Amino acid sequence: MGPGAAMRPEGAERSAVVIAETVRRAAALAGVDLPAARLVVGAAGAGRAQERRELEAALLAHGVARRTRATSDGEIALAAAFGKEGGGRDGAGIFLNAGTGSVAFARDPEGRVHRSGGLGWQLGDEGGGYWLGRRALQAAGRATDGRGEGSTLLSRLLAALGLTDFGALIRWAALASPAQVAALAPHLLNAAREGEAVAQRSVEEAARELVALVGALARHFPEPEPLAVATGGGLLRPTSPLLAAVRAALAADLPRAQLARRTVDAPLGALRLAAEME
Amino acid sequence: MGPGAAMRPEGAERSAVVIAETVRRAAALAGVDLPAARLVVGAAGAGRAQERRELEAALLAHGVARRTRATSDGEIALAAAFGKEGGGRDGAGIFLNAGTGSVAFARDPEGRVHRSGGLGWQLGDEGGGYWLGRRALQAAGRATDGRGEGSTLLSRLLAALGLTDFGALIRWAALASPAQVAALAPHLLNAAREGEAVAQRSVEEAARELVALVGALARHFPEPEPLAVATGGGLLRPTSPLLAAVRAALAADLPRAQLARRTVDAPLGALRLAAEME
Repeated sequence: MGPGAAMRPEGAERSAVVIAETVRRAAALAGVDLPAARLVVGAAGAGRAQERRELEAALLAHGVARRTRATSDGEIALAAAFGKEGGGRDGAGIFLNAGTGSVAFARDPEGRVHRSGGLGWQLGDEGGGYWLGRRALQAAGRATDGRGEGSTLLSRLLAALGLTDFGALIRWAALASPAQVAALAPHLLNAAREGEAVAQRSVEEAARELVALVGALARHFPEPEPLAVATGGGLLRPTSPLLAAVRAALAADLPRAQLARRTVDAPLGALRLAAEME
Repeated sequence: MGPGAAMRPEGAERSAVVIAETVRRAAALAGVDLPAARLVVGAAGAGRAQERRELEAALLAHGVARRTRATSDGEIALAAAFGKEGGGRDGAGIFLNAGTGSVAFARDPEGRVHRSGGLGWQLGDEGGGYWLGRRALQAAGRATDGRGEGSTLLSRLLAALGLTDFGALIRWAALASPAQVAALAPHLLNAAREGEAVAQRSVEEAARELVALVGALARHFPEPEPLAVATGGGLLRPTSPLLAAVRAALAADLPRAQLARRTVDAPLGALRLAAEME
């Protein structure tokens, strides 16, 4: 899990620098000597064979591991969700992740990988943390200037940010980073859990957006067979009202979906792939 | 029209520095000798009497004008819309502005000024340029990964930005400033004008958001009397499909509104107020 390691065509060395630095930091934290025996990297943009080989060669040259395997972030996520023990036939299924952003990956019955969403905070990521944080801010604004119904969101956000009044929140929001806005999402989830109507509607709308990511991938699976769906990410933890809303929206819109009980962490997929390396 | 001149409590000197510099630049461009005879400043946050006096004193000390008048941005906008020649009784009415952001100001029949919206690109500004530019990006994303209906928006945005493919747009959007995203709005308006369904729906939704700003202020005017409404800003120019949609939404939601034929430019209000200075 490193920053800015997404790979562009002919960008293997640039990605490798970032990844090698992340590996060195992680190894130092974990007390692991380098080079490691095996390194599995899942990077956005590293799905094609040529990019994979270039990234593996560049990583070997950095000397952080004796053997490397590069693949896409989607492969890692799907390995976490549908590795040997889960999923439909041949590890097929759809993995839906909602954290700061939102994305879904599918492995179809022929083994091909597809994705929808994951387009970033301004272009997409509907139903993710930034999207929900923005909803919380906007609901507070609508309530305050009389356009929307009353809401406890303003006082929740002020308390969370240590601000005293709405004017301070306006100034905060003008400069807040995507990560800072996404960090507001749990307060909206709490409000929804406690029955606030405005927050509950936002959660339901987020769930519809997330299920749309799954729906866009369902066409790769033959109807009417059951479709394995797994979830992960900070917003879809077991007790999250967003997970409950996703469950309800899936039942309504995509009844052949079979939602896994356990949520999964995508990084576990890298460990699973590493264990499979010969 | 200067950057970052919004006034905070006890921030008169800080605002005055920015405003004086802006005045010096404008005077140099216009070939006007300073100090000017009269200076009218409309600054967000300068609506209250104490802030006004402090800002006027600070501006005088900077020596850019022999006499100054400070007031709020809303007063300026309302003077542009409902100065001597327009508006309801006593210059009362509502001025709706849509540019990069969105805001509405009202002067009620008792002369009090109210506002709704204008809360900034992340917290509010629904129906403004940033909001519409984001809709254009998201519609392109939904069409591309199969969640939404087909749209010409992707090819329009790529052409406008000089980009070659969707991946380049994803990277652009991750780093684009609010102003850069707002600059995409005209392409969505063009698509709507040419009949594209996705763009037309976005324009209609934007119009409902803008009319909600007006609706929140209508409660300050006694029913059922007619309510003068004027519009301004780059997105509500006379031929804009957004202005046509606002006209339709006002007729449906707020039938007592009487929409002025001409759109107005808020800075003209400052000139009007300057002409009234004794």
